[in-house]
Amino acid sequence: MPESPIRKLVPFAENAKKRGTKVYHLNIGQPDIKTPQIALDAVKNNTIETLSYARSEGSEEYRTKLTNYYANHNINVTTDNIIVTTGGSEALLFTIGSITDSGDEIIIPEPFYANYNGFSTASGVTVVPVISKIEDNFALPKIEDFEKLITKNTKAILICNPGNPTGYMYSKEEIQKLKEIVLKHDLFLIADEVYREFAYDGLKHTSVLSIDGLQDNAIVIDSVSKRYSMCGARIGCIVSKNEAFITTAIKFAQARLSPPTYALIASEAALDTPQSYFDDVKAEYVERRDTLVSELQKIEGVKVANPKGAFYCVAELPVNDTDDFAKWMLETFNYNNETVMVAPASGFYSTEGEGKNQIRMAYVLKKEDLIKSVEILKNALAAYKA
Amino acid sequence: MPESPIRKLVPFAENAKKRGTKVYHLNIGQPDIKTPQIALDAVKNNTIETLSYARSEGSEEYRTKLTNYYANHNINVTTDNIIVTTGGSEALLFTIGSITDSGDEIIIPEPFYANYNGFSTASGVTVVPVISKIEDNFALPKIEDFEKLITKNTKAILICNPGNPTGYMYSKEEIQKLKEIVLKHDLFLIADEVYREFAYDGLKHTSVLSIDGLQDNAIVIDSVSKRYSMCGARIGCIVSKNEAFITTAIKFAQARLSPPTYALIASEAALDTPQSYFDDVKAEYVERRDTLVSELQKIEGVKVANPKGAFYCVAELPVNDTDDFAKWMLETFNYNNETVMVAPASGFYSTEGEGKNQIRMAYVLKKEDLIKSVEILKNALAAYKA
Repeated sequence: MPESPIRKLVPFAENAKKRGTKVYHLNIGQPDIKTPQIALDAVKNNTIETLSYARSEGSEEYRTKLTNYYANHNINVTTDNIIVTTGGSEALLFTIGSITDSGDEIIIPEPFYANYNGFSTASGVTVVPVISKIEDNFALPKIEDFEKLITKNTKAILICNPGNPTGYMYSKEEIQKLKEIVLKHDLFLIADEVYREFAYDGLKHTSVLSIDGLQDNAIVIDSVSKRYSMCGARIGCIVSKNEAFITTAIKFAQARLSPPTYALIASEAALDTPQSYFDDVKAEYVERRDTLVSELQKIEGVKVANPKGAFYCVAELPVNDTDDFAKWMLETFNYNNETVMVAPASGFYSTEGEGKNQIRMAYVLKKEDLIKSVEILKNALAAYKA
Repeated sequence: MPESPIRKLVPFAENAKKRGTKVYHLNIGQPDIKTPQIALDAVKNNTIETLSYARSEGSEEYRTKLTNYYANHNINVTTDNIIVTTGGSEALLFTIGSITDSGDEIIIPEPFYANYNGFSTASGVTVVPVISKIEDNFALPKIEDFEKLITKNTKAILICNPGNPTGYMYSKEEIQKLKEIVLKHDLFLIADEVYREFAYDGLKHTSVLSIDGLQDNAIVIDSVSKRYSMCGARIGCIVSKNEAFITTAIKFAQARLSPPTYALIASEAALDTPQSYFDDVKAEYVERRDTLVSELQKIEGVKVANPKGAFYCVAELPVNDTDDFAKWMLETFNYNNETVMVAPASGFYSTEGEGKNQIRMAYVLKKEDLIKSVEILKNALAAYKA
């Protein structure tokens, strides 16, 4: 089990705090946005007397409401196509466990969400990376690059759309290209779509489940964590029209008995969140993104990808080793008693040596804090060089 | 991933209910006991505005309170020895994932909690059963029986104490025997102690963590589910003084990010549950056990183990195939429009053909319902034969 690049610096951040240094957390996708009141209230007003197991795959009621949510996003599924999970993490774990045996391979465009590697390793599966480039804004690599990597052990291609850590949003055309290759080689196309709502600049998100002819191959990983700013709920789901896959995945769900009951109450209520909530949140993130990107661009030697979705941004820094630099910012550096925690990008690559001069920043803090964070980063870069 | 013997009959039970038949659920350890008010109130009175990730291994505060709980149970550990998990299920999954590679083996006295098999399979690990017998009340098999099964791939012995499904409580002497063998062969001794408080007839529970000289080998799996009748919380923990093991297990915890936040609030508050709650619950379970066992013993041809802990009871029935019988009770049979759901014991054995005439019953219902359930079972047995 590889170490989480998002969490491995946590002890250094804690030490910095103990020394009285304020730490701006751009390292983790933990938004400061308020959870919809309707979800919070549902839990506060619960009338549970015996906190019982929930149904392993989620209640009929919740899954029915989810089908309505998906229908509103151009995804037509039934309750039988949905398994409720303990976060998107568990959805991924069950998916990989269900479609692979030890020794199998999954192709993933890198940089990718670091825990894809962890969950694959836990299942004895090898991640085969196909590199996407900051110069291209991390667009889908050429389809020939995928094809070259396909072996008899390849079981799936896994994408995150919009992307963590890249912020890239795959177009319908790019999804169509992936469709051709997965159909040709009989692979699953797993799409982590937990940032579906976070689509900016007028772009429309394309779900793999909205593409005709992909129904036997498409698996969607979903979660309430980012959508409703309720990362601590730990509710997600698997959505697929492939019956054999769902039958296997349900066995994993049954083995762990039940998703968390209180969180299910919050998640079901959250489905009635008014559209105005999402409009406000999106406007807020667009402003934050614009702020972060433009502030970063002012620093000499810093190159920034232009994120179109989610709330992450990969930046290239004028340093050789961001693992060392990020640790140094927490261990040694401070600027007016403040510092910044970022995620070194090496953890988002499985190709050795890639991403060593990149970092991921999550723009989950308010505008003023982002401006301050970049100012701290700028001063840190100057001090680190000296 | 094998099918859960506890859950596989669920669709048949649902069909029975749709036909208007009342189903008594003795198939699953879902107690009807109320959750401590202090835990329920803590959630209702929460002041969360943004439902954030919890710390991957659980907060310092909760783990500190847990060390006090353990100290009261003769288990001296520090916060660094504890990783909070999403239920005992996840504690088991992380433990097996941390100490094994694909192809390794774990020895488990059978019958055993069916999901041990599921979690092992998910990690590519083979369960090697050592048989315990209903005639011996499912006491620890002879230590030579374990020794015969140890190979170079054996990584651990796993026990459940008190036992699900057996209700057997291992004595201090039995744990000492296991100590000798795990030290001799450098194995882990994993003890699922989630039923620690459910010890009857004056017996005292012995934790593997209370045994001198076992600190590097002992791993405890724990959970709030049964202790506080809050199965739906999904909070458990791993406890071990083996630092290398804990370091690895934390990586699994970080990969799944966080245990569920609302459930942590309930679980932390539950630690202040007054002793009177446990006294009442224990008295209730003893009465239920005595009722169930004595009622079962009245049926000709039924043999019952005498459970000393937990809230399960294995019974041998005068039928050849309890898988078929249990399904038939749901599908075909009813007695005054009522029937009983039990867990066929074959799912608790990994030796093919074992336990085919046994069932597991959870005495988690009130006395009158248990009496009714056994009456239904008696009539079902008569009708099934005919």
